[in-house]
Amino acid sequence: MTQPVKIAVAGALGRMGQAVIQTLEGRHDVVLAARFDRPDAEGDLLVSADAALAAADAVIDFTLPEASALLAEAAAARAVHHAHAPALVIGSTGFSPEQLARIEKAAQKVVIVRSGNYSLGVNMLMGLVRQAAAALPASEWDIEVFEAHHKRKVDAPSGTALMLGEAAAEGRGVGLGQVADRARDGVTGPRKEGAIGFSVVRGGGIIGEHSVIFAGESESLTLSHSAIDRGLFARGAVAAAAWTKGKPPGLYDMQDVLGFTR
Amino acid sequence: MTQPVKIAVAGALGRMGQAVIQTLEGRHDVVLAARFDRPDAEGDLLVSADAALAAADAVIDFTLPEASALLAEAAAARAVHHAHAPALVIGSTGFSPEQLARIEKAAQKVVIVRSGNYSLGVNMLMGLVRQAAAALPASEWDIEVFEAHHKRKVDAPSGTALMLGEAAAEGRGVGLGQVADRARDGVTGPRKEGAIGFSVVRGGGIIGEHSVIFAGESESLTLSHSAIDRGLFARGAVAAAAWTKGKPPGLYDMQDVLGFTR
Amino acid sequence: MTQPVKIAVAGALGRMGQAVIQTLEGRHDVVLAARFDRPDAEGDLLVSADAALAAADAVIDFTLPEASALLAEAAAARAVHHAHAPALVIGSTGFSPEQLARIEKAAQKVVIVRSGNYSLGVNMLMGLVRQAAAALPASEWDIEVFEAHHKRKVDAPSGTALMLGEAAAEGRGVGLGQVADRARDGVTGPRKEGAIGFSVVRGGGIIGEHSVIFAGESESLTLSHSAIDRGLFARGAVAAAAWTKGKPPGLYDMQDVLGFTR
Amino acid sequence: MTQPVKIAVAGALGRMGQAVIQTLEGRHDVVLAARFDRPDAEGDLLVSADAALAAADAVIDFTLPEASALLAEAAAARAVHHAHAPALVIGSTGFSPEQLARIEKAAQKVVIVRSGNYSLGVNMLMGLVRQAAAALPASEWDIEVFEAHHKRKVDAPSGTALMLGEAAAEGRGVGLGQVADRARDGVTGPRKEGAIGFSVVRGGGIIGEHSVIFAGESESLTLSHSAIDRGLFARGAVAAAAWTKGKPPGLYDMQDVLGFTR
Repeated sequence: MTQPVKIAVAGALGRMGQAVIQTLEGRHDVVLAARFDRPDAEGDLLVSADAALAAADAVIDFTLPEASALLAEAAAARAVHHAHAPALVIGSTGFSPEQLARIEKAAQKVVIVRSGNYSLGVNMLMGLVRQAAAALPASEWDIEVFEAHHKRKVDAPSGTALMLGEAAAEGRGVGLGQVADRARDGVTGPRKEGAIGFSVVRGGGIIGEHSVIFAGESESLTLSHSAIDRGLFARGAVAAAAWTKGKPPGLYDMQDVLGFTR
Repeated sequence: MTQPVKIAVAGALGRMGQAVIQTLEGRHDVVLAARFDRPDAEGDLLVSADAALAAADAVIDFTLPEASALLAEAAAARAVHHAHAPALVIGSTGFSPEQLARIEKAAQKVVIVRSGNYSLGVNMLMGLVRQAAAALPASEWDIEVFEAHHKRKVDAPSGTALMLGEAAAEGRGVGLGQVADRARDGVTGPRKEGAIGFSVVRGGGIIGEHSVIFAGESESLTLSHSAIDRGLFARGAVAAAAWTKGKPPGLYDMQDVLGFTR
Repeated sequence: MTQPVKIAVAGALGRMGQAVIQTLEGRHDVVLAARFDRPDAEGDLLVSADAALAAADAVIDFTLPEASALLAEAAAARAVHHAHAPALVIGSTGFSPEQLARIEKAAQKVVIVRSGNYSLGVNMLMGLVRQAAAALPASEWDIEVFEAHHKRKVDAPSGTALMLGEAAAEGRGVGLGQVADRARDGVTGPRKEGAIGFSVVRGGGIIGEHSVIFAGESESLTLSHSAIDRGLFARGAVAAAAWTKGKPPGLYDMQDVLGFTR
Repeated sequence: MTQPVKIAVAGALGRMGQAVIQTLEGRHDVVLAARFDRPDAEGDLLVSADAALAAADAVIDFTLPEASALLAEAAAARAVHHAHAPALVIGSTGFSPEQLARIEKAAQKVVIVRSGNYSLGVNMLMGLVRQAAAALPASEWDIEVFEAHHKRKVDAPSGTALMLGEAAAEGRGVGLGQVADRARDGVTGPRKEGAIGFSVVRGGGIIGEHSVIFAGESESLTLSHSAIDRGLFARGAVAAAAWTKGKPPGLYDMQDVLGFTR
């Protein structure tokens, strides 16, 4: 039997850290090896960042941009000076270009996965949408992105809907800005060929629904994602950590984890 | 066994007249008794309007406003001077107030059903939406109307979507104009309590989809209609004609045919 | 401003009791007045059942059959001997006929709502399905019940799917046993007129989806319910408690709370 | 501007031939070059099979197995003896192994596309399902195939649903026979890991709906196809004909036309 992948959890006291730890319970392919947090954080089971890097095959890190950049540098230094350095799975967001450059440099020595959305399903959907958009010509197939979220969401369309629109535009070799058709209302005239339309529902506690519709004259294809609960990001990060096993150093994202080639 | 309802078809050479005649084929509860069209229309099987009124239990009339108003008056005159006058099922649209008044007057003597949309499913949906909107308080349930149509449709939202929004607003005792939330885009802020949202998809050959969503914090209810082919209006008109049997004179609509009380 | 309805929560330490208490937070139409549990239960804020009955306008009770029957009798006795007795909203399940008879008798003196499923949406759906099934003839409209649940569910179709099938059968004036068509597979032959079909999906963490489809030749109507989280029963019970205000003694269910007349 | 692909239509008097001819109207990338049918067929615009092969870049052939095999041999002979032979797009079904072998042999000389289902959307769906099934592990994601068709359909699940199930099984490297879970009913116990479930709706005039659901614990992915009208096969065949331009001789199917590599 293969050894389970040993996981260290950064930001172990935070909401996402807790969710990751919970996701690890009862699994056989991955095991919790260490938990750590900021140096001043208190908790019975916490170790230092160094101890965590030493103990783990992969570190899952949903913290803050600077903490993640420092962690990447520490892992790269470890790879140079020791036989072993763990892979990093980084889910922090809001990086500056300078911080991104430091992470990119560290990825020359260690395996780093970085993504702004660790949902496996959403990333799968993005890959499938890109392909379908490349294969189904704009002259025959109209693309529409639909999303629904809870009543507290303050922007529209959702960031994920825009990412899906971008995946579709990329598949067609166009920029989303040129073809996006948002907020139809009134006398719109017939649909423009090649447009990528967006529509938005807001209500109640809907966690998150996204659909990309490819509508032809005689048939339609709809690729949809539905969030069941908010654990989906923790699960995706754990899947990314398990995937890092045996990979060469480099900077990866969830499209790589899912095996999409671009 | 009960006698089938004898149907005369006005505008028998037109597209809707043809669709109605096709719908009558092979049914046992209704039977084609006469077909007629404008006096100058030529066709082997056509009779005069008088002969059609004499032969039928119900006339299905998808023609033009003035022709429908004249037909209603002829049927009412017949009810006064003869023992028998058929019911009318009027699907013409674009009436002037004066023409509507003539139809209303004729309905004192004969049974008249008039509707702008004879789809049984859409009318059923309107009745259900009105009820659900009355029962589910706006403080707890958000209402959204979604529709999808083919790429050639030039206006948004569809007339039917607006009718559904009106049914929801009526159920809540508000005017749709005060609460409609169309074309969300950008930084919208959180959803307003009591709003009725609209969203629109356009693409390919989609015949017509409508959904009304009641979204609560922990559950949602979705009432949807889907058009399979364009025969749905003819079928609804025939159902209305069958329903007229034994009804007292009066002006009815499809909500009455479906048994909704308001 | 009207006074909020004062709620006492039975089984306040249980999972459903906790969910009800959580639902009450931040509302203005209802307020938590007392919490109680079994006499031997310990908790800082618990009062006796008697004190709870005295303090409340309505008691929400998700406990056990015998506890609920005793509570109903205590409330009825209170109605006889005092000026005031609270309404009861009973969500316990598994009653014996004898226990049900005791509750029915108590309902001569106090308002009792009893239901096996307090989801407002599911109950709304049942009422709408019954009506649609009554209005849309079996010769023209085929009824199908679809449900999806998580992979751990051990029976199929779900109890709620069968309740929806019964609502449809009731609307048509037939018994579900005579018309249910479950588990189609292989060479089935064409669909039987009047059948009510069932189909089942099982997978992952799906909380609960139910749809009733009315399929005609040219159009279809689909009435769906989707559970977002497991708080939906607590919310429905609170809505029932708020509804009891000013009602005459009697035994009611969620169809009454939603205003459906049968 | 590139020259349009010249199309000859075999079985031009048949239902599918007519549908193909109708699909060609008004297009610029393809043009109707010849129509032919059985030698004894009569029609003003018909030419001989030889004349059609000479005139066309591609022949679309929805006829009968033997006619298609003979046509393939005639095209191959033409490729040997003339500078030019058209590609064939064969949609006939029910071939014997001997007839298939003759077509395979002819494909050494000419481009032949053969498929039992020319719907672009269904073939796209198959390719996407295979990939998603390969990327999303059975231990975390449950696969379910759902389909809905009209009340006249006599078998269940549909052939297309089984093809989608096979695509999913292929993606997972298992045989569908080992993992198919059809017709759940009664006390089924929890879902088996790795099972591929099927569910079936029958009603009214539903043309054809297929969904493949990948259900995880915290999210689900649904890939769906919906038929709008029965022209979808003609459109797919025309797309295949346009695709043949410039391809080397060989036997292809719709997965190749859509660019899926296996």
